[in-house]
Formats: sequence, C-alpha cells, structure tokens
Amino acid sequence: VTPLDALGRELRDLLGEIADLESAAGLLGWDERTKMPPAGGAARAEQHATLARVIHERLGSDRLGRLLDDARSRLDGGDEDGASAVVAVARREWEKARRVPGALRADLARAESLSEQAWAEARAKSSFALLRPHLERLLELKRLYIECFEVEHPYDALLDDFEPEARTGEVRATLERLRDGIVPLVERIAAQPELDDSCLYGDFPLDAQRRLAGELAAMLPLPAGGWRLDDTAHPFAESIARTDIRLTTRYDPGYLGTAVWSVIHEAGHGLYEAGMPADLARTPAGRPRSLSLHESQSRLWENWVGRGRPFMTALHPLLAAHFPERMEAVSVDELYGAANVVRPSLIRVEADEVTYNLHIVIRFELELELFEGRLGVSDLPEAWRARYFKYLGLEVPDDATGVLQDVHWPSGAFGYFPTYSLGNVIAAQLWERVRSEIGDLDDRLAAADLEPLYAWLGERLFRHAGKLPAAATVERVLGTSIDPTPLVAHLAAKYGELYRIDAAVA
Amino acid sequence: VTPLDALGRELRDLLGEIADLESAAGLLGWDERTKMPPAGGAARAEQHATLARVIHERLGSDRLGRLLDDARSRLDGGDEDGASAVVAVARREWEKARRVPGALRADLARAESLSEQAWAEARAKSSFALLRPHLERLLELKRLYIECFEVEHPYDALLDDFEPEARTGEVRATLERLRDGIVPLVERIAAQPELDDSCLYGDFPLDAQRRLAGELAAMLPLPAGGWRLDDTAHPFAESIARTDIRLTTRYDPGYLGTAVWSVIHEAGHGLYEAGMPADLARTPAGRPRSLSLHESQSRLWENWVGRGRPFMTALHPLLAAHFPERMEAVSVDELYGAANVVRPSLIRVEADEVTYNLHIVIRFELELELFEGRLGVSDLPEAWRARYFKYLGLEVPDDATGVLQDVHWPSGAFGYFPTYSLGNVIAAQLWERVRSEIGDLDDRLAAADLEPLYAWLGERLFRHAGKLPAAATVERVLGTSIDPTPLVAHLAAKYGELYRIDAAVA
Repeated sequence: VTPLDALGRELRDLLGEIADLESAAGLLGWDERTKMPPAGGAARAEQHATLARVIHERLGSDRLGRLLDDARSRLDGGDEDGASAVVAVARREWEKARRVPGALRADLARAESLSEQAWAEARAKSSFALLRPHLERLLELKRLYIECFEVEHPYDALLDDFEPEARTGEVRATLERLRDGIVPLVERIAAQPELDDSCLYGDFPLDAQRRLAGELAAMLPLPAGGWRLDDTAHPFAESIARTDIRLTTRYDPGYLGTAVWSVIHEAGHGLYEAGMPADLARTPAGRPRSLSLHESQSRLWENWVGRGRPFMTALHPLLAAHFPERMEAVSVDELYGAANVVRPSLIRVEADEVTYNLHIVIRFELELELFEGRLGVSDLPEAWRARYFKYLGLEVPDDATGVLQDVHWPSGAFGYFPTYSLGNVIAAQLWERVRSEIGDLDDRLAAADLEPLYAWLGERLFRHAGKLPAAATVERVLGTSIDPTPLVAHLAAKYGELYRIDAAVA
Repeated sequence: VTPLDALGRELRDLLGEIADLESAAGLLGWDERTKMPPAGGAARAEQHATLARVIHERLGSDRLGRLLDDARSRLDGGDEDGASAVVAVARREWEKARRVPGALRADLARAESLSEQAWAEARAKSSFALLRPHLERLLELKRLYIECFEVEHPYDALLDDFEPEARTGEVRATLERLRDGIVPLVERIAAQPELDDSCLYGDFPLDAQRRLAGELAAMLPLPAGGWRLDDTAHPFAESIARTDIRLTTRYDPGYLGTAVWSVIHEAGHGLYEAGMPADLARTPAGRPRSLSLHESQSRLWENWVGRGRPFMTALHPLLAAHFPERMEAVSVDELYGAANVVRPSLIRVEADEVTYNLHIVIRFELELELFEGRLGVSDLPEAWRARYFKYLGLEVPDDATGVLQDVHWPSGAFGYFPTYSLGNVIAAQLWERVRSEIGDLDDRLAAADLEPLYAWLGERLFRHAGKLPAAATVERVLGTSIDPTPLVAHLAAKYGELYRIDAAVA
C-alpha cells in the first residue's frame, strides 16, 4: 500500500498512461535531435502531432475530469503531500487541456517539429528568410493558443507552460532588478584588465573531448546505469524516466569550455530528473513542472559547482589527463580564472555567468514585444541587433550568431527564456543556504565528493517534485520568496575578487 | 487529389494516427535494443504497455468500425489496389483487435519487454532458470490470446500475427518438403572435403569492422539521408518511416562474417521498408505485413546477392581496403568459398544457407509441441538438445548456445520462425525470375550496380506493399504458389558446384 493508492486504480492507470505517452513523445524528440536520419523529419512531425493529440485527448477527457472529481471528494484535502497534491496538479492540467482544441494542439506539435527542422538549415545558412514563414505560422498558432485562456497579459499563457502560475508582471520586475544589479557590474569588470583564458583555446581533438565529457558526467552523482551522453547541435537533457536520463552536448574543436560546462549544465538537469521521488513516478506531480526550478539545478551545477574555485581542484586533473600538453602547465587558479572570464559575447550558451542574464533580458523583452503586437516576425533580426548593441555593446555580424542562434523560438518555446534567469536567481538562494548548512561543502567539492550536496538537494528540493509552483516551492524550501538579491551579491563578490574590483564599490 | 482521398479525411487521419503510434512504439523498441541505459528497462516496459493499449484501443474502436463500414459501402469494391485495399486490410486488423481485450494486449506488451530484458541476462549467464518464469508467463498470456480466436490449430492464431492468413498445416507441409530436400544435401556435402574459410577468422578490430559495415551498407541502394546503422546484441531492422530506416548489427572481433552478412541481411529488410509506396504511407496496407515476404528480401540480399559469386567481385575490394593484410592475398574465388562453407553449427544467425533451414525446422517443431501441449517450458532445453543432435548431429554444450540464443521466444514472438524459411523459399522463386528478366544481372552485381535489381523488386513486389497475404502476393508477382522446389534446386546447384558433388547425384 502506498499513499497514492488513495487515488484509485483507474485514475492511477490513466495518469500513468499520460506519463508514458509523454515519455514516448520525449523519446521522439531526443531521437530527432540526436539520432534521426535527416530524411525522417517529415514523418517525425506527424508522429509528434499524433502523440500530442493522443496525450491531449486523455488529459482533457471527461473520464479524467470525473475520476479527479471522485478522488477529490474522497480525499477531502487530506494527504496534502501525496494523493491530494497529485489530484490538484492533474486537475490544473485537465482544466488547461479542456480549453485547447485537440486539433490546435496537434497543429502546434507538427508546426514546431517542422519549424525546428527548418531552423537547423536556416542557422547553417545564416538565412532568417528560411525560418521566417515557420515563425509566422508559430506566432499565428500561439495567438490562437493564448485566446484559449483568460489572461491579464497574453504572455501569461505562454509563460504558464514553462512556469505554472507565474505572471508576466512579476517576472518582469524580477528581471529588471537583476538587470539593474548586473549592468553596473559588467561596466566595472570591463574597466579592469582581462583574465587569461587562453588555456581553453587551441586544438582539442573531438575523440579526446568525448572521453573527457563521459568521465566528467560519470563524476557527478547520476544514477548508475541510468543515463547516457550523446552529441547534438544544441545541448539539452531529456528524461525518458527517472532511471533513463539522456544528456547531450556539443563539442567545439577549438574551445574546450563548450563541452565541459555544457555537460555539467545538462547533467544538472538530469540530476534533478533522476532525483524525483520514486513513489510519485508516472503522475503529473512526480515530474518537474517549473523550468525555473529545473534551470536552478542546471545552473547550480554548472556555475556554483562547475565554475567554483573548490571544484577546480577536482576538475583540473581530469582535464590534464586528457590534454596533458595543454593543461599540466596550467595551475588550478589559472583554470579558475579561465573558467570565469567575463566578456560580452554574441552567443548565449557560451556566455559567462554575469552577462548571461543580459542575453535573457534581451530575449524576454523581444518576446513581450512580439506578443504585445509591437514587433513583427520580420523585424526580429534588426531588433535583435539593436538590443545586443544597447545591452552588450556588440555588433551582430549575421543572423546565425544573432536571432537564429537558439532553438527555442523555432521549436515554439516562447515563454521559456525568463526561466533561465529565474533559475540563476533561485540557484543563488539555494547555494547561500546549502553553504550555511554543509560546513565542509568546499572541501567536499574539491574532493569531487558530490553526494552530500546531492543528498541535501534531494531532501530539501527534489522531494517537492512538481507538486507546487516555483514560488511556493522556494517558500517551502527556504522560507522566502524568489529574490535576485543573493544572485547579485554572489556575482559582485565572486567577480569583485576575480577582477580585483574595490570591494567598497562592488 | 490522391486515390486514398476516397477514404475520407476522418478515416485517413485515424489510420494515420495508428501508424504514427506504431512508429513511436517501434522507436521505443529500437531504442531499448540499441541506446537505452539498462536502468530504464522497467519504465520502458510500462511505456510499451501503454502504447500497445492506446494502439489497440484505436484499432478496435467503434469509430474505426463505423468509418470502415461507411468507406466500404461508398467505394463498393472499386479501386481494388488503392482505397479498397486499405479498407480491407484495416477491416481485418479491426476484427482481430475487437477480439482481444485491451488489458491482455497491454499485459503482453509489458511481459514481452520484461522478458526480453531478463533474457539478456539469462543468455549472458547461460541460465535458463532466469528466463523460465518469464517464458511461462508469456505462454500463459499467449494461450489467453489464442482463445480470443476461432482457429483450427492454436498455432494459427500466433502465425497470423506474422503471416496473415497463413495456416499451420500449409506451413508444415512446405517446411517438410524443404527439410526432405535439404537433409540429403547436407549429408552429401559432409562427405566432401571442407572449404577453407580461414580468411574470415582472426583478429578484426571492431573500429575497422564498423567502418567497413557502414561503407557496405552505403553500397546498397538505401535512401540517401534516410537510414542509420547501430550496434546491438541481436541484429534487427526497424522502420520508423520509409524515410527513416534503422539497421543494427553486431560484431565478432574474431570472425568477420558476422558483421558483413548481418549488415546485408538487415539492409535487405530496410530496402523493403524503404521501397514501400509513398502514396500508401501511414495506412495499414502501406507497410509490410507478411514476414515471409520481409525475410524473402533480407535473405535475397544476404544470400543471393551477398553470398553470390558475382557480388564477391564488388565485396572483395571493400574487405581488402579495411583489412589489407588479411584480404589482399585472398582471391575472389577463395572469398566466395569462405562465404559459403556449409558446416552444421549451433547458432542460427551464423548458419550457412543450407543448414539454416534445419535450425528453423527445429524451432518450428518445438513451437508446435509447446502450443499443442506436448511440451512444457521446463522441457525446452532438453528438447532443444535432442533436436540439434537429431537434425545437425551436434551436442549443445550450454543453454546460451542452445535454447537461449534467440530473442524471439523471450520477446513473445512465437510463430515468427517459420517465416525465415518461407522467406528463403520465396527469395529463390523471385531470384529465378529476376535472373531471367535482367539479362546482365551478374555483371551488374559484380560492378556493385544494384539499382536494376532494386528497381525490379520495387516494380514487381514492393508496389503490392501490405495489401495482400504472402501467398496472394507471390501469385500476383510470379503467377505461382509458394513452392520450395526452386530453393532446393538453387542449393543443390550452388553447393553441388562448390563442393564438387557429382551433378547426377545432387
């Protein structure tokens, strides 16, 4: 007997079926981005559309509504952390599904798959024109999607798919506070001498990078026999089950940092998925729902662990083992500096910890303008250029390194970007707490002993799984609201020291 | 406007959805056997069960029945090769699905996935005891499945899933004629001096074998950008779409033949799937349904092309390019002999073209005894040993090389095996015809110009797709029934020459 038995067999089975179909859809997506022969793309778009329709049909079914009503009245609010939480989350997903026609859901899935495939070619040819009709189609469908809901701001409906119950106004306020804290720091760093990151540039053969990446992932507390790492064009992590975690990365033959920190970042996502409570498996409350919490984990592992001074002691020998000629002469402190160079740059996924959030602010502002009707799809490349000049002082030479760089918009993920910065914000809040509670955390990280940190995250954060929205989860874990102050303080302290900025000014 | 528009939009969409779900299920299976982390197995079994239930639910739905009735009365038997054929095939699948409870279908899918996972460990440890409870569970479920149908022989219901409309009695008669033709040939070959196949044994590094296998597959007329080749424990081919063909193979570091002819065999399956008519895509008539026809293609490419004298001229330089030290000193005729050594052996997938069919006869006879209730699961290892001694004169040293060698029974595929020999039979019939119609076929094969053969198969065979059962398809293509005479004649002639057996006797 488990707490979820209170749901009743029929409801459990139906929720389990929906979860299995979502896993199958996840595998279609993973395969499309890592293994699928290119000619399979058109058929794959139909397969996506069908899975989306079948999932939507079940999720918005009369039967699920009736079973949820029955369960709710039977449970009567008891067992808030178990069966009742599952019912509440499922009920919310059911209500959302009821509002969206199945045909629209299928049209979106098909259009997103085709658009993402077109994007790959558009980016390779740096031709926005190849992507433009797909983006226009997606915008049209997304507007129909928004119309299905009663929202204060049109962007609320998009945001909700990635950050349930979040509101555009709150997110904007948080990102503005973050931006206002970061812009002056970027200016002060720019006035200082550059750090040396030449040790990460040069000739790094891909086979050796792949071996390094595999060993690096294996250093992290991923489930034994329950993960794999593959090549892809745009790194992502996908959980087919909590025991079946798919990490991906890409490799730059001339820069070692791409693989190293993208592997740690994606592993952070995987560690979160792998840490979901077993007893909630195959229920909608048993998987992550807030992408801000998800990103808090990828960014915590990438930046607070992976770019932190203590873990450099563990990372250095691994790099030196695979690239002895390059790395044996480099000190751990030099590697720490190289891993943390702050330099305004064009590509988000290669951005440093400080300027990263400005990349997000740019995307968030453009998304708002698109959906507020102040910007057309055809205006995007120019608006992108203007914004990169304004926030980062950079000229964008072409669309491949500009508006075409990210998979999100071409794959229909409007509303996703702000979760990256919210994830940074939450990671800083979590880190402040875990450092105060694990006294010897730095020593553990230096010894590549990552289990205490992972156990802490499991006990505090993962156990809430997808039961609550991000804000309520943070409240439960930390007793506070989502607040950018610790992130700004972290960045000021870390980079103040690295760049020898007068502490009183920083 | 295409001929299938006559089906009506709703029916086309529903059949397309079923096809897409089957593709998604196919991807779950491909992934499970090639990429899935081992810890993902339990979750994968649930995913399989759910997909099977969802497919079954749609396939046996009142809605499909009503749409098929409507279409049938609207079409009134016209357009026999297009819309009416689709309706007829779908109707038959609908009638089968109506007889099987969805829960049984899901139980079978789950049990098959778990059993196959247990088999991998059982085979590695050569422990039948590890597999036995799974096989017993499968037998129990298969008996429930058989009871859903009104059949003359219980095996008919199993056979029908792999060979629609075939009957146990007919298959038995064909295999008996084949066995009676082959046993004396094996005896005569055994009396002759052995051929030398030492050039295929030795140290063949796996990386070089992988490169060779990739180039070999690329020599075959597979669709550009529409296929891939991966490693697996038990080679198979899976079509996610006709433009997305997944081939797999395994490699033996000490024997080159495993990879070479398994790649050609699986590519033969892939070539058949890739050759399905585009206008029937996403309909039940548009994909192969007869596994005998499927195997006729894998075996035709493996044996008639891949082990034939003409193609050796094309194959030899490829082997020599990857293994120059081994292969440059070997003549094309020596390679031809090495590729065609007849030697009773324990492992079916490594068996030569002649004794292969005796491996099938053994499995078919044991399957019949199992389902006629004359043999229990626990008796299988001993019965296997007795039969290998009887037909092949061999002692079976352990279960790994005995009853545990094949994935079929552990994955629930009872009724599959006879299609291999029926495939050989049909391949011989097709080959007799294609040789008489393409005058310079041998020259083309020697030049690795495989397009004329592939085009002939497309025009004659593939265009029938899954519209008709195997016997009716052979009747359409060749104007004859399924007949083992050409296969026995082919083997007698080819091996009579290779083993210098007096032609009058052979």
